[in-house]
Amino acid sequence: MAALPSFDRLMAALERLPGIGPKSARRMGHALLSMGEAEAEALVSSITEARSRTRTCSICRSLTEEDPCRVCTDPTRDARLLAVVEDAADVEVLEKTREFRGRYHVLGGALAPLRGIGPDDLHVDGLLSRVASDGVEEVLLATNPNVEGEATALYLARRLKPMGPRVTRLALGLPVGAALEFADEVTLSRSLTGRREI
Amino acid sequence: MAALPSFDRLMAALERLPGIGPKSARRMGHALLSMGEAEAEALVSSITEARSRTRTCSICRSLTEEDPCRVCTDPTRDARLLAVVEDAADVEVLEKTREFRGRYHVLGGALAPLRGIGPDDLHVDGLLSRVASDGVEEVLLATNPNVEGEATALYLARRLKPMGPRVTRLALGLPVGAALEFADEVTLSRSLTGRREI
Repeated sequence: MAALPSFDRLMAALERLPGIGPKSARRMGHALLSMGEAEAEALVSSITEARSRTRTCSICRSLTEEDPCRVCTDPTRDARLLAVVEDAADVEVLEKTREFRGRYHVLGGALAPLRGIGPDDLHVDGLLSRVASDGVEEVLLATNPNVEGEATALYLARRLKPMGPRVTRLALGLPVGAALEFADEVTLSRSLTGRREI
Repeated sequence: MAALPSFDRLMAALERLPGIGPKSARRMGHALLSMGEAEAEALVSSITEARSRTRTCSICRSLTEEDPCRVCTDPTRDARLLAVVEDAADVEVLEKTREFRGRYHVLGGALAPLRGIGPDDLHVDGLLSRVASDGVEEVLLATNPNVEGEATALYLARRLKPMGPRVTRLALGLPVGAALEFADEVTLSRSLTGRREI
């Protein structure tokens, strides 16, 4: 094999990114080498620039360039409805639906006792104090529909319900456009339990 | 949606990489923002460093830090056997098998008349002059087993055969570890045609 230490270092750095294995890293590495100088500089500077310009909103902990973020300061958003999500990326995903008109609270992860992640490692206290003081009437627990996300939602529901707000959870069921045939049993049974009159 | 122009620019830059769609770009973007300063700098500098240190071998056009590359200057490699590949990345893939002991020639793509890529856009002349002067006895056409790669192999075979060398092609058939059940018909029929006695 031709010795290419600088390319090997590039591949190693790329493989640390989520979802990038050796094959994608090689493919991306070659693309990075063969692109024009202007394009390569635009990519590199977009990384450093995004890192220096973005910060975490001091209220909801979502990603923002201004603190507090635009959602937290927008007077047209419904302050009575608060969606709790695991990561800042989830805020963007929910915003893209244009369905949600409330505000957000980013936990910074989910409970995972086996990996040593407990309530103190998440922004739970901030959530409780927002709910206690901000006139929140409904908390939508929008954690992921997996074991850790469900456990986190149950834990938060227990903490939040005594404080008074309605506590809701995202609906589980078949993805739109899917075929029954390919649905897993757990999803299908959740979809049956949650069936709605039309 | 919270306004995040610097994050949007980062996503746009990442989406230009091969195999990176909007979802992977978002995921990678968030990872790039949340990683430590040292790791981010290592990634950015690995890109610029690999770009400045690597070049194209003046003989075979593969990726190298020294010109000519180590394969071209290695006296233990068999100069009578020349593998023709589409891209520099293919050289690395073949080297990883440790099966091939000849040398390489990178075409820089495949014939694609519909996209306006003809023989003059590939390093065909360089290949013909290497075969004419370098004592090459076998040319292994290792272009991709798809329409463009096959057309390129056929074209090169027609040009090379009158010059005297044996012209061969990579074997087509079932991938190792695959199940017959999941093989497509074309692959299976190639695998039948190319059956070997055991």
